[in-house]
Amino acid sequence: MLRDRVRRKALLDKVVSAEEAASLVKNGSRLGMSGFTRAGEAKVVPPALVERAKNDGLKIELFTGASLGNDMDGKMAAAHLLTRRSPFQADPVMRKAINNGEIMFIDQHLSLTAEAMRADQIKKVDTAVIEACAITEDGYIVPTSSVGNSATFALDADQVIVELNLAHTDQLEGMHDVYIPEKRPNRTPIRINSTMDRIGVPYFAVDPSKIAAIVETNIPDSAANNLPPDEETAQIAGHLLDFLKNEVKQGRLTHSLRPMQCGIGTIANAVMSGFQDSPFYDLEMYSEVLQDSTFELFESGKLLRASTTSFSLSAATNDHVMANLASFKEKIVLRPQEISNNPEISRRLGLICINTALEFDIYGNVNSTHVGGTHMMNGIGGSGDFARSGQMSIFVTKSIAKEGKISSIVPMVAHIDHTEHDVAVVATEIGLADLRGLAPRERAPLIIKNCVHPLYRDMITDYYERAVKRGGHTPHLLEEAFSWHVNLASKGTML
Amino acid sequence: MLRDRVRRKALLDKVVSAEEAASLVKNGSRLGMSGFTRAGEAKVVPPALVERAKNDGLKIELFTGASLGNDMDGKMAAAHLLTRRSPFQADPVMRKAINNGEIMFIDQHLSLTAEAMRADQIKKVDTAVIEACAITEDGYIVPTSSVGNSATFALDADQVIVELNLAHTDQLEGMHDVYIPEKRPNRTPIRINSTMDRIGVPYFAVDPSKIAAIVETNIPDSAANNLPPDEETAQIAGHLLDFLKNEVKQGRLTHSLRPMQCGIGTIANAVMSGFQDSPFYDLEMYSEVLQDSTFELFESGKLLRASTTSFSLSAATNDHVMANLASFKEKIVLRPQEISNNPEISRRLGLICINTALEFDIYGNVNSTHVGGTHMMNGIGGSGDFARSGQMSIFVTKSIAKEGKISSIVPMVAHIDHTEHDVAVVATEIGLADLRGLAPRERAPLIIKNCVHPLYRDMITDYYERAVKRGGHTPHLLEEAFSWHVNLASKGTML
Repeated sequence: MLRDRVRRKALLDKVVSAEEAASLVKNGSRLGMSGFTRAGEAKVVPPALVERAKNDGLKIELFTGASLGNDMDGKMAAAHLLTRRSPFQADPVMRKAINNGEIMFIDQHLSLTAEAMRADQIKKVDTAVIEACAITEDGYIVPTSSVGNSATFALDADQVIVELNLAHTDQLEGMHDVYIPEKRPNRTPIRINSTMDRIGVPYFAVDPSKIAAIVETNIPDSAANNLPPDEETAQIAGHLLDFLKNEVKQGRLTHSLRPMQCGIGTIANAVMSGFQDSPFYDLEMYSEVLQDSTFELFESGKLLRASTTSFSLSAATNDHVMANLASFKEKIVLRPQEISNNPEISRRLGLICINTALEFDIYGNVNSTHVGGTHMMNGIGGSGDFARSGQMSIFVTKSIAKEGKISSIVPMVAHIDHTEHDVAVVATEIGLADLRGLAPRERAPLIIKNCVHPLYRDMITDYYERAVKRGGHTPHLLEEAFSWHVNLASKGTML
Repeated sequence: MLRDRVRRKALLDKVVSAEEAASLVKNGSRLGMSGFTRAGEAKVVPPALVERAKNDGLKIELFTGASLGNDMDGKMAAAHLLTRRSPFQADPVMRKAINNGEIMFIDQHLSLTAEAMRADQIKKVDTAVIEACAITEDGYIVPTSSVGNSATFALDADQVIVELNLAHTDQLEGMHDVYIPEKRPNRTPIRINSTMDRIGVPYFAVDPSKIAAIVETNIPDSAANNLPPDEETAQIAGHLLDFLKNEVKQGRLTHSLRPMQCGIGTIANAVMSGFQDSPFYDLEMYSEVLQDSTFELFESGKLLRASTTSFSLSAATNDHVMANLASFKEKIVLRPQEISNNPEISRRLGLICINTALEFDIYGNVNSTHVGGTHMMNGIGGSGDFARSGQMSIFVTKSIAKEGKISSIVPMVAHIDHTEHDVAVVATEIGLADLRGLAPRERAPLIIKNCVHPLYRDMITDYYERAVKRGGHTPHLLEEAFSWHVNLASKGTML
């Protein structure tokens, strides 16, 4: 019952319909919305804003934690509601609007959006739309299945619209640890020294007079749509586990490794599943998202605890986790994304960071975002927050795509999100290349030998050898560095 | 007198010649040497190692803080002493050996070398050669005009060779603050909350039994070779100051701005000199190097205090500073480079970071290192430590080079050190582009209008407009993205 969840009774006066709440949003608003990797997004106000876009031509700028569930990004893009979107999305309709120049997309390190607003580097939001599972006696907002940037949005905004979603268990209350760094110059260290350290409060301490509307909803989060592990992802996991076993053997890591961060998606999820059949134990995660694989590792006792800003679970796993949430309360903490992704913590804890590459090149530069060097896929997400600051930065991908028409390892990536400075290890189903301490001319032969698909090995060797003849610290033939991408665009294949 | 500087008298037995000290270095050694931006490098052991290379074919791997003075890198490269070099150099002879593939150069974020060794991500050094201005009663090493990575090298090495350099004033003692982060998993926050906070000790607390040799020297640091400000650098400074004045006017900064980091070199030094005639005051620096401009700002009272890992001064300024060092003791602190450059601190303090680009592109990606995309100039240095973590990341360069044959703004940079995610502002003598909160399609027209030299404006506009017609979040024509670089290589001009 809504009445049980809104514990500051005076706020019951603010309960309105989604349409009434949406009417509070002014044209041209900068809207901060909850939601991270399809978890905890507002469910009914965005559709009401979509209706306004259709009826009165409403345009807004939208900021979130990351991607939204329930096709929210797609619906907003289809209705031409948005002029600007940041910091991440993962929707095919919105992607099209971004790539045709309709929506200005600011692809940002996920730890930096709230920070940039706090420091007046980008304008603050004026309205926040936040999904909650409760409002406390003090009028404070208890978030749901993600924290994202919601606390900062709610604190900064002139008005806050709360979606009280009864589909979320109220057992979520107490799992969040909301800590907001001080405004500079009075900033102090973020005192997280181990995965589960709690340094904040379990709610957003927003002035309740700013709560302009409360809307009741009862709509679950979207289920994650990861594919199950396949032969190639199992092989990638295998190479990674062999590598980590050797690290332990060499005395560079222990059986519990370091706390792990793992990016979202099918490959990353499959790689983490691989830890199930590994000799490692007492593992921890300090990540931005927990996927099904996390809970497999909890089940088997491999994983001790996990810090995150969001869940991204299949329907079955979500049902199981939410029904047994009490048992996870000592094992999981949900933080704002500027804390889950904070380089200060990532470097202090020395994370092992596993993220997915769209493509990487013979020197270990990584493209995480741009198809063909020009078309945005999803965004850099948190990969850049982690790759530079963790103890070890690993990027994985399958060596080929589209039945071999595309090689994921190319002479030069057509867009760079992670430079070779930030990439320690790369792996495909073919094998793994440990690039630590190696110069570019040592990296290239290793990547070619260990990671490139046999279909492309001769071609890429030929490129590299001719480039080396021309010289340089990082040999290239600029006039043909992108010839594989150009061939793909014109002939439909890199071969 | 050497005897006065070696206060642990038992260590006087270890005083030997440079040749004797050099004989302790085994073939194939990993050598950690002091020295950062031509300050505080070992002066006489490296030449003795060069002699060994000539006589007995000695080969070593060399790690330092950054670049070395007294042409040390050049001499070692000319003698083919080095098989490996990291993390930075700035010498024409060594550059050639790197680019022809003789020396394997690992171009690394300067904050990360010591960290990577501590965490066993790269092998530790076995021998350290450290310039000192004193050895304490406890046998601890007091460094000289730079700290760099020397503390970690000395702590890690099996044997330490100390060069006691009488050319350095013993007034340097007490200016250093040597703090070494704990080994993980017991790492705690680095408790620096403002520029001058001291959290360490003023020496390297090395087991004195590891001191294998002490060599007396009396050779000064090399003078910095910055060119004086010229018309273009003054214009760049002017644009930057106008921009910052407007930030104050808009309430986004105060008259004291934020602590500033400034890269090394002529342009950066000239830009900092520009603050002399600005309305800003009570300034602070939290940087990796202090150049002449820093002391102009101290002189005039504009600058209150400065944290650094090194000096890089002209002969005249160096003489003045070292003669009056006592007066700077409350205003300057010298730290290990993993602390001066630590992203944890840079983000906490919210630095304004000013670094030099070799070239940048229409979307704000920056090349700091590779001429023609292939040939190493110096290295990324600390720019990546700061650009991602400060409050505001600014890159500056002159719009053209070689009398206009080269445009520093190109359709696509041929090598990326800093992605558009990490670049907030770019400026040339033509003007400044504030890229904060802008999507690629908003960035490009602004950069073209504000920063590109008129010689290239039509060409680059034509490229961009044709690329936009093809679509994409970051429009490009891959088949001609590097045509300017290719033309330069084949025809000697980008025009």
